Amino acid sequence: MTRDEALFEFLLRLGDNTLILSHRVSEWCGHAPVIEEDIALANTALDLIGQTQLWLGLAAEVEAKGRDADMLAYRRDAMAFRNVLLVERPNGDFGKTLMRQFLFDAYQSVLLTHLMTSSDQRIAEIAEKASKEVAYHLERSGDTVVALGDGTEESHQRMQSALDDLYPYVGEMFVADDVDAEMALAGISPDISGLRSEYDSIVGPVMQAATLRIPENAFVHKGGKTGRHTEHLGFILADMQFLQRAYPDARW
Amino acid sequence: MTRDEALFEFLLRLGDNTLILSHRVSEWCGHAPVIEEDIALANTALDLIGQTQLWLGLAAEVEAKGRDADMLAYRRDAMAFRNVLLVERPNGDFGKTLMRQFLFDAYQSVLLTHLMTSSDQRIAEIAEKASKEVAYHLERSGDTVVALGDGTEESHQRMQSALDDLYPYVGEMFVADDVDAEMALAGISPDISGLRSEYDSIVGPVMQAATLRIPENAFVHKGGKTGRHTEHLGFILADMQFLQRAYPDARW
Repeated sequence: MTRDEALFEFLLRLGDNTLILSHRVSEWCGHAPVIEEDIALANTALDLIGQTQLWLGLAAEVEAKGRDADMLAYRRDAMAFRNVLLVERPNGDFGKTLMRQFLFDAYQSVLLTHLMTSSDQRIAEIAEKASKEVAYHLERSGDTVVALGDGTEESHQRMQSALDDLYPYVGEMFVADDVDAEMALAGISPDISGLRSEYDSIVGPVMQAATLRIPENAFVHKGGKTGRHTEHLGFILADMQFLQRAYPDARW
Repeated sequence: MTRDEALFEFLLRLGDNTLILSHRVSEWCGHAPVIEEDIALANTALDLIGQTQLWLGLAAEVEAKGRDADMLAYRRDAMAFRNVLLVERPNGDFGKTLMRQFLFDAYQSVLLTHLMTSSDQRIAEIAEKASKEVAYHLERSGDTVVALGDGTEESHQRMQSALDDLYPYVGEMFVADDVDAEMALAGISPDISGLRSEYDSIVGPVMQAATLRIPENAFVHKGGKTGRHTEHLGFILADMQFLQRAYPDARW
């Protein structure tokens, strides 16, 4: 694997994470419990798709095979996607969606802070831009996790069950492989596996304030980063890619 | 509209009804309440897809523009589909799926009996073949409607609510337009609007045995036969057509 090949993979992971989470969040559009939350979720999805455009745009530039961000987003099949499994988990109820968002936002926040000093100037610039949005996402999702976790008995139980269900997908974000090693060696990315303590220092206090118990079972679902996905991704792509699949190269 | 153009539309309606219902029923695969019902539903879906192949195969032959049954099934977009709205209704619970099946089976049974004497020999042959399968579907769905309608209080209420929800979609099957008039004129099809009394004589006794009340409101949802579909069809097609859209002309 050349450095550019590793860089391409690394950028796909960043772009696919935000793309697939953006699609999941956009599924709420018109369905959230109150209008303000509906708009907030739609805005989150928009931020994420904006970040996707930057990450996949750069990935396409690095790949240099004539594909652009749209082709990477809409014309790859499931096995070519590199998102972590966490972001393809089904929405569940509103609380579960916000729990997934928080668990991802916290990771993204830590990672982007490090990427702002990447040796690759293009990555540092995207990270700088995205981190402002992510700081806001993190504040909002964290506040909601606390409000619902430390809310009524029912909201507490739902949030605990969301955390129990989603926490086994957290570990994958910190599993480093050859791609990550190559990026760390080049100073492009931090050592992913070394970010866990920073992550825990964000997630821990929020869960405590939310009166939620972090599961102790250390089992980790993984595979998404290397293209082994759950059955959910195929259905996401079927919906998400329909237009470009049915009308390839369609333009406004 | 030439006679062949009308015949093509007429065959699309037959094929799209069985195709879309087949997809809906196949969504149950692996999810039915007991294994026997799971297998029965999968078999029903298989019968319907088999009938689809015959109807759309003949449609493609009549159209004579180089498309085959697969292209008609997997490469048309929603507005080009001609199925009635009833068959694209969401599955709901098991009872509702069987209610939809019964309301369609009864129509199909009546229509196919008449099509067996169609002036078009190809149609008569398909009708003869399909009617054996449909007779079995009708017996099975009718028995289930009776068993659940005249079952527990909860099953009764669910079946009544399924009937209330689906009955407004029955009328569309009997609304005749220029295509139907042309087919009737040519002796290819019976007068669709004249089939209602035969239909009612099948549905009425079953609902009576099921202790279910047929809604009196005469409102009729329609549009599917002429390509105006509900939002559900797009999602059905996104799932159903993914493979052929992603890999056009893929072969085993």
